[in-house]
Amino acid sequence: MNAPGSTRSATPPEHVFDWLDDAAARRADAGLVRTLTSRPAESKRLDLAGNDYLGLARDKRVAGAAAAAALKWGAGATGSRLVTGSTEVHAELEYELARFCGAQAALVFSSGFAANLGAVTALTGKEAAIVTDSYIHASLVEGCRLSRADLAVVEHNNPGAVEHALATRRKQRALVVTDSVFSVDGDLAPLRELSAACRRHSAALLVDDAHGLGVLGDGGRGAVHAAGLAGEPDVVTTVTLSKSLGAQGGAVLGPRRVIKHLVNTARSFIFDTALAPASAAAALAALRVLRDEPELAERVRTRARELADRLTDAGFGVSAPEAAVVSVRAPSADEAAAWAARCAERGVDVGCFRPPSVPDGVARLRLTAKADLSEPELDRAVTVLTETAPPSARR
Amino acid sequence: MNAPGSTRSATPPEHVFDWLDDAAARRADAGLVRTLTSRPAESKRLDLAGNDYLGLARDKRVAGAAAAAALKWGAGATGSRLVTGSTEVHAELEYELARFCGAQAALVFSSGFAANLGAVTALTGKEAAIVTDSYIHASLVEGCRLSRADLAVVEHNNPGAVEHALATRRKQRALVVTDSVFSVDGDLAPLRELSAACRRHSAALLVDDAHGLGVLGDGGRGAVHAAGLAGEPDVVTTVTLSKSLGAQGGAVLGPRRVIKHLVNTARSFIFDTALAPASAAAALAALRVLRDEPELAERVRTRARELADRLTDAGFGVSAPEAAVVSVRAPSADEAAAWAARCAERGVDVGCFRPPSVPDGVARLRLTAKADLSEPELDRAVTVLTETAPPSARR
Repeated sequence: MNAPGSTRSATPPEHVFDWLDDAAARRADAGLVRTLTSRPAESKRLDLAGNDYLGLARDKRVAGAAAAAALKWGAGATGSRLVTGSTEVHAELEYELARFCGAQAALVFSSGFAANLGAVTALTGKEAAIVTDSYIHASLVEGCRLSRADLAVVEHNNPGAVEHALATRRKQRALVVTDSVFSVDGDLAPLRELSAACRRHSAALLVDDAHGLGVLGDGGRGAVHAAGLAGEPDVVTTVTLSKSLGAQGGAVLGPRRVIKHLVNTARSFIFDTALAPASAAAALAALRVLRDEPELAERVRTRARELADRLTDAGFGVSAPEAAVVSVRAPSADEAAAWAARCAERGVDVGCFRPPSVPDGVARLRLTAKADLSEPELDRAVTVLTETAPPSARR
Repeated sequence: MNAPGSTRSATPPEHVFDWLDDAAARRADAGLVRTLTSRPAESKRLDLAGNDYLGLARDKRVAGAAAAAALKWGAGATGSRLVTGSTEVHAELEYELARFCGAQAALVFSSGFAANLGAVTALTGKEAAIVTDSYIHASLVEGCRLSRADLAVVEHNNPGAVEHALATRRKQRALVVTDSVFSVDGDLAPLRELSAACRRHSAALLVDDAHGLGVLGDGGRGAVHAAGLAGEPDVVTTVTLSKSLGAQGGAVLGPRRVIKHLVNTARSFIFDTALAPASAAAALAALRVLRDEPELAERVRTRARELADRLTDAGFGVSAPEAAVVSVRAPSADEAAAWAARCAERGVDVGCFRPPSVPDGVARLRLTAKADLSEPELDRAVTVLTETAPPSARR
């Protein structure tokens, strides 16, 4: 730092970012370097890493709707939702999404990340308290940080701890924030208990149902619907259009006055270019497929249970899958990474979650089931995982 | 608030969000209610509100590339960039974008908002100081708030104030953050002076070139390129793919080590579904159009100057347009809104910026020129703005 009048010379421009090399070296020492690899359009690889749970991203009805919308509406929305970015496709998607999930109204954002930022910040503020589960998604964490609210982070899936935090808060208004299906292990939040705790303490409940929509509940209406909380006046749900619906974007579902409030105050909505019409049209087409084929949701849950059962039978420590996510414990971060790499060499892509991305410090492979996973693919997955496993991964 | 053991009854669920009605009433009293209206695909309206500066969103080469990519790759990317979301289209776009703008490397985000969040937070942190212009875009403001850095917000376009803040900062590392073209009035930041101040004080410079790319610099290479700062080792640029490039998404351009650092640490990159392949392909096609037709950038600047000159001749208070944005002063917030509404009734869509969205408290109409704005459209715009103007809007 050069104080005015200091005789110390300034850092030459080429050295201003030298600190990034130090950070990179620390990552390398810890074995935690992330690098991008780009995939081709066609591949014989088995994808157990992505979130296209219903296999709709490449469904002709969905991809075709995206293509048709790009030609009809143009490649981009041309502006923010409040200026030129709202098209009839956005309005139609919001109407059908709200109706499908049983909410009064919906608002589409350009991503689930933006939906979470917008919902958390607009519904709290420095005059409010937030109580969150310690395993919530990073985008909710960012929303909490931005909100300036009093923040209590409580033990994972502990409604009693939530209740205690609500009872001892210092602010009148409060929002409880949770994922419905936690992304690392795929376990479910106790939504009914959380809602009851909220009601005893005059708090609202915000549920990120990113991994529930299309997978849980009646015909894939999600975990909030399954818990009987859809349409409740004190519950707000966020969803993503990029997982089960195979597209891109996110949405907030809730009471009409909540949606109106977001239109007027959510900065990640107001100051962001609208979702591309092609992505909105794709999500709408996928939603209609799901409405017409409600068995898709059951099918992905069945596939997840089959995958988990067979990996358990093979001796691994496997989570009980409530939705589409199956996690398999690895002995260490290094062994998890090496195991995932060996799977990839054998043509099977699996996720690998290591510290610091896992809240409990336990490294694991993260597998996602798909509704269109075939019997031979299931066999191949189990065979490859078994043959590549580090010895100590089996109990 | 119910303390444990309190006998006060809980707020019934249907009243938990009553405070939103109070907030809505305050907005209504202030005349600041925002509502969504959705537009049809085809229209004879004249759009002077959107950010499709080069008219490429509906260009057949761009929309066609989006449609073809949706059919080839599917409607969505299926996962985050580090899991399954990086396709060859993303890699190609990053390569060509960096090359076009003269940067070492580029990283594509799902929005410009996400790119700004990621760049600001990953390059600062609580061990750093940030110095920002007071008029920066909301997404940069959110990034600064999230960063936990020491924050100094200085007077608009005052390099001396930036230098003073850098000289008196308490942290070793520092980042100066600015828009290149400010979104409200379309005025330019003094990038060369800011860079010089950074260099005298060992700071890095981050420039949001959202409104510069495609409009300013040699063939639309942007304001950072025009200032001779592209490729500099201490300069990072963010851009959007949703304005001149007519698609959706954002990107960060800069030294290779900065890009690697973002891949490893930017939470709005790591924990977000990748940009849809259709949007990436559209942005790539638009970039190639711009490379092949460098006159597009000059054309939109000429159109903006013509629009500004004719409105000035008509007696309005008009900004000197440095890029595509032309702002016209209105006597008050209410009159600005009424003026914009009268333009809309006459089929001409213009933006309306009112407090609190304008940093100086001055309400104005905000017009955006387009490269494909025809002479008759220009006539129509000036006629409608003049005939609908409140009397006191003219000097």
